[in-house]
Amino acid sequence: MYYFCFYMEKFELNILGCGSALPTTRHFATSQVVNVRDKLYMIDCGEAAQMQFRKSHLKFSRLNHIFISHLHGDHYFGIMGLVSTMGLLGRTADIHIYSPQGLQELLQAQLDSFYNKLVFKVIFHVIDPKQSVVIFEDRSITVTSIPLKHRVPCCGFLFSEKPRPNHIIREMVDFYKVPVSELNRIKNGADFTTLEGVVVPNERLTIPATPPRKYAYCSDTMYNENVIPIIKDIDLLFHEATFAQTEEKRSKETMHSTAKEAATIALKANVKRLMIGHFSARYENEAVLWEEAMSVYPNTVLAKENLCVPV
Amino acid sequence: MYYFCFYMEKFELNILGCGSALPTTRHFATSQVVNVRDKLYMIDCGEAAQMQFRKSHLKFSRLNHIFISHLHGDHYFGIMGLVSTMGLLGRTADIHIYSPQGLQELLQAQLDSFYNKLVFKVIFHVIDPKQSVVIFEDRSITVTSIPLKHRVPCCGFLFSEKPRPNHIIREMVDFYKVPVSELNRIKNGADFTTLEGVVVPNERLTIPATPPRKYAYCSDTMYNENVIPIIKDIDLLFHEATFAQTEEKRSKETMHSTAKEAATIALKANVKRLMIGHFSARYENEAVLWEEAMSVYPNTVLAKENLCVPV
Repeated sequence: MYYFCFYMEKFELNILGCGSALPTTRHFATSQVVNVRDKLYMIDCGEAAQMQFRKSHLKFSRLNHIFISHLHGDHYFGIMGLVSTMGLLGRTADIHIYSPQGLQELLQAQLDSFYNKLVFKVIFHVIDPKQSVVIFEDRSITVTSIPLKHRVPCCGFLFSEKPRPNHIIREMVDFYKVPVSELNRIKNGADFTTLEGVVVPNERLTIPATPPRKYAYCSDTMYNENVIPIIKDIDLLFHEATFAQTEEKRSKETMHSTAKEAATIALKANVKRLMIGHFSARYENEAVLWEEAMSVYPNTVLAKENLCVPV
Repeated sequence: MYYFCFYMEKFELNILGCGSALPTTRHFATSQVVNVRDKLYMIDCGEAAQMQFRKSHLKFSRLNHIFISHLHGDHYFGIMGLVSTMGLLGRTADIHIYSPQGLQELLQAQLDSFYNKLVFKVIFHVIDPKQSVVIFEDRSITVTSIPLKHRVPCCGFLFSEKPRPNHIIREMVDFYKVPVSELNRIKNGADFTTLEGVVVPNERLTIPATPPRKYAYCSDTMYNENVIPIIKDIDLLFHEATFAQTEEKRSKETMHSTAKEAATIALKANVKRLMIGHFSARYENEAVLWEEAMSVYPNTVLAKENLCVPV
């Protein structure tokens, strides 16, 4: 007898801020943290992201990569405070920032003003927001750019977990006296043949690893069906829903999306769940946006400050 | 019969943030707003000052002047977010920022990036932080720089109300049939002579205006007795108290003050009340700082986010 289950490793989304350009007492400017097995990846860094990061009980030392969708202030004004705090906390590891062209130029004067006090470097990587390509990769994930349509060059990000080897079932390995030298092959799917020549199928020796999961961030953008093939069938989609349909004209003018449009993208891309955010300051209560999205795509949640959801 | 009282016009201090360089979940970075009869003057503008400003129910349209003590990030990182928000709210009036040399250079790239969208100008005024001089004046107040001792050029600010004319007692003016043409002279202290030649003393016709009040902001600074003559006898002093005496060595190294030192300045300057702030992140509870200050100067209050006190 052995049990069969998925061993779910941590892959979470933390919302630090989900307001739009005008912060309110209800919402901070945009920032999120993707947590993959306690490695943290920040998406956008609006003002006060560092305070919200702390409030979400995340660890600054675990954050090495920041992805900025576009160069509107509500998506990057928090970088200097974050970098300053990292310096004060004695950080030594470099921090990498990925963004469309121009961010370094906006921040360089301020960085220069305290660079002599920083042990670590702030390394800028320029993304081409017109292409969907892998812009970052490590042992755990790949990050792919998602071209979006906004008033300035802008791209979203697809976080894809890499497939992981299966987990060994300790009791079975002991029972069949599997030598240590065989373990890696078995983790990667091989069967095991005993000294007596009996073939033990891999399924008896391992538990499947978590199936690779995917999270996509699409903000800021107007309705854009070109993203659908990139985010097809993913586990969780964050899509901006700045306005309700009643503000459709304003939405188009400012190149944002309505809640209905966000839900339509989720539906057409067949994603498993949708989270909407980047709420306009005009909505005292976002229930109107939620209901509008739910009417098209029921599996929708509203973003909220310091919310943490599994992907 | 007439009543005698002070007619107290609004002169308030609003604390937006009173933490030091490392914001915590308890404290925002430094920022304050002085409210003189609903004209607002901001002192320092740490990250998220705009959110705290909103939370304190202050009006962005009433704010035209920002005074920055020195160019450490925790005192100016909030400017860009504030300016951006003013732009989004449709502001047309210019905003004036007073600071030691160099602030414009730190922010210019970001300002340029959205200047074509701003109707108003951000006008920088350079202060010489080594001199105590009037750096700003309007109908209501004068602002005088207070040279401080910190790791970079730094100055505090003395806000002095201008003397105001007395208030006319309407009933008395009617009773003596004072012509309108006389009112201004009477407001400024003149007696009134009736047609019958009776001299009515000014004290019967007017209520004294509020005696001019003074508020001083001294942060960031190490213990510095040179400020005493400038802040002598004022109504309210905000003095930084980053550390307790147990951290005296660290306090000297970083050129900050202890709570005891802040209280000693208050005592020697004979101020009416002291508020301490700019608390180091190491103090989970600032009671230790409060007690230390109170032991030297009893009339001490702790700063706190969104606290509003009359000057």
